[in-house]
Amino acid sequence: MRGLTFHGNEDVRVDDVPDPRIERPTDAVVRVTLAGICGSDLHIYHAGAQFGFAPGGRLGHEFIGIVEEVGPEVAGLAPGDEVMASCCVCDGTCTYCAEGLQSSCASWSLFGWAPRVWQHGGAVEGGQSEFVRVPLAASTLHPIPESLRGEARRPTVLPLVDVMSTAWHGLVGAGVQPGDRVVVIGDGAVGLSAVHGAAAKDASAVICLGHHPDRLERATALGATAVVTSRDTEEIRAQVMELTGGEGAHAVIDTISGTASMEAAHACVRAGGAISCLGMDHFMGKTPAINWFDQFLRNIRITGGLVPGPHYFDELLGLVEAGRLDPAPMLTHTLPIDRAAEGYRMMEERREGVVKVAVAPGLAA
Amino acid sequence: MRGLTFHGNEDVRVDDVPDPRIERPTDAVVRVTLAGICGSDLHIYHAGAQFGFAPGGRLGHEFIGIVEEVGPEVAGLAPGDEVMASCCVCDGTCTYCAEGLQSSCASWSLFGWAPRVWQHGGAVEGGQSEFVRVPLAASTLHPIPESLRGEARRPTVLPLVDVMSTAWHGLVGAGVQPGDRVVVIGDGAVGLSAVHGAAAKDASAVICLGHHPDRLERATALGATAVVTSRDTEEIRAQVMELTGGEGAHAVIDTISGTASMEAAHACVRAGGAISCLGMDHFMGKTPAINWFDQFLRNIRITGGLVPGPHYFDELLGLVEAGRLDPAPMLTHTLPIDRAAEGYRMMEERREGVVKVAVAPGLAA
Repeated sequence: MRGLTFHGNEDVRVDDVPDPRIERPTDAVVRVTLAGICGSDLHIYHAGAQFGFAPGGRLGHEFIGIVEEVGPEVAGLAPGDEVMASCCVCDGTCTYCAEGLQSSCASWSLFGWAPRVWQHGGAVEGGQSEFVRVPLAASTLHPIPESLRGEARRPTVLPLVDVMSTAWHGLVGAGVQPGDRVVVIGDGAVGLSAVHGAAAKDASAVICLGHHPDRLERATALGATAVVTSRDTEEIRAQVMELTGGEGAHAVIDTISGTASMEAAHACVRAGGAISCLGMDHFMGKTPAINWFDQFLRNIRITGGLVPGPHYFDELLGLVEAGRLDPAPMLTHTLPIDRAAEGYRMMEERREGVVKVAVAPGLAA
Repeated sequence: MRGLTFHGNEDVRVDDVPDPRIERPTDAVVRVTLAGICGSDLHIYHAGAQFGFAPGGRLGHEFIGIVEEVGPEVAGLAPGDEVMASCCVCDGTCTYCAEGLQSSCASWSLFGWAPRVWQHGGAVEGGQSEFVRVPLAASTLHPIPESLRGEARRPTVLPLVDVMSTAWHGLVGAGVQPGDRVVVIGDGAVGLSAVHGAAAKDASAVICLGHHPDRLERATALGATAVVTSRDTEEIRAQVMELTGGEGAHAVIDTISGTASMEAAHACVRAGGAISCLGMDHFMGKTPAINWFDQFLRNIRITGGLVPGPHYFDELLGLVEAGRLDPAPMLTHTLPIDRAAEGYRMMEERREGVVKVAVAPGLAA
């Protein structure tokens, strides 16, 4: 089959790779219908060699598809079922899964980060390929409800797998309630998802900070009540204060989580509020910096983390079915599998009009 | 009257100072019966000059006493009432007070930090003195219930003003539930209070990390189920894992909040858990360091902050009345007002057997 593989930093290619097969009785093999390229995939693209990625590893932790084959111990799934996958493998039975923190499952591993040593459950290859092996399939896969099946709804469902659930996790962690004021830092796919999610949570103000006019336009379409484009902390503070009755935001969703974004986050957040850190720049050595004096004096909480997708899938699918969420507009481009490497470059270069690129293995090249 | 005043770094003295008087119709004057010396007072003692303290400023934000005089607009209080004071002045009516975050009150100021520019409500002098002026007295003072009045119960009530409520705030912020495992870093008064509070919250394990045998003995008497004395992170991790079934603590209450303590906190906390930062070492430029990779990957929340005392006073007084809390053992020494400066040195030098020193202006010199 064809699959996107890592060859070295800034070198990913679509190669002929072995077809995945059932290796354990709890495995399934899924035929991928749509797979996203995530901002965190760009970290691998940049510096995978430093992370321990060996050439030949396949990328992609965001995918939906159709069950092709199931092992003898996979309950509740059959070939032909349309499914979305958790980014992280989870067993559904450990203490953390029972608590809804599937991203800390005892059997955890992350699709497409196969070579990393912090895999507990054995390496799993990525989903930017025609087929993918899914361990512990009964808990790692989630059926797509009937009303959201089929090709037309895939751009709506795919973002729920990671970017939309990650943003939702940030909003939940920050305790966002109806009527709250929310600032979202960043206008990438997670940022737009946070904007969209905050609107779905009936935030009274949703302010998006970003620097790309085309993305900020999209943010407004997805629910932002205002946008701020300044890079100067004091200007950001002044504008956000004016937009929030002088008080600041109950929650700041920082999708970058670097030094500058955290400075802006402290400037925007109200006393007793929360900053959700969803960015992964610290993977690249750019460590966020908390203003500890502010954190202490004004009781600022720091939250956010790797999303336990399955904890939110039913809720998010329900909101989509109810017409209250539709993250499809952040998926700007869909390419056939053989052009997947081009998708990385489109996102990497932040080309105008590009937010998120997906790969559809069924699409003619 | 006599009052402890700041003369310069490492130079506090008890001087004759003007008697406080009602300055605004919402003021009260309180005759102090017992005033604590807080760990944060030692920060002023060390470096008050850098903080902007001018010679002559009076210290002390932890005090209880008897109402001496009230202004014409003070409802619900009369001379003779026994009261505890919030460390922070609060108006009881602003948005933050209504939410229970009185430490961010619009009229906020902090007793005994008078010279700081971040006073919103006008400077207030400290309570380590015979009398103290209390602004917005109706909301800043809290009546002591009848069963806890009188000299014998003062060592029980005084710690509720700050150290016990601060520790409680950390436990609440970390979301500690019955059955949870709690690690407390530090064996000072806030650390012992966190131990005692965790036990009152029916934690299944309360592990105190410290280095002073006499204080750790006290920790055990106050509810610690185990103590750890190592300074080595890996040793701490191993011991805490052994004490927590290999999983770690649901909550870590870090009463130091420095680089080493935060490293230990990350080593002790379980995935999805919280670290409450209650220390103020960052006031002294010792900035805590979050392990951001761990924070993200394991969903660790960072919480803690300046305590909104009045939000907890009724609950804590109720627990004392019910016999479930008695923080008196952490108050190891009570001195007459004229020996207050000696109290600072006793705490500063961490003399054996000294945890917390209080000043009783009514005590014969």
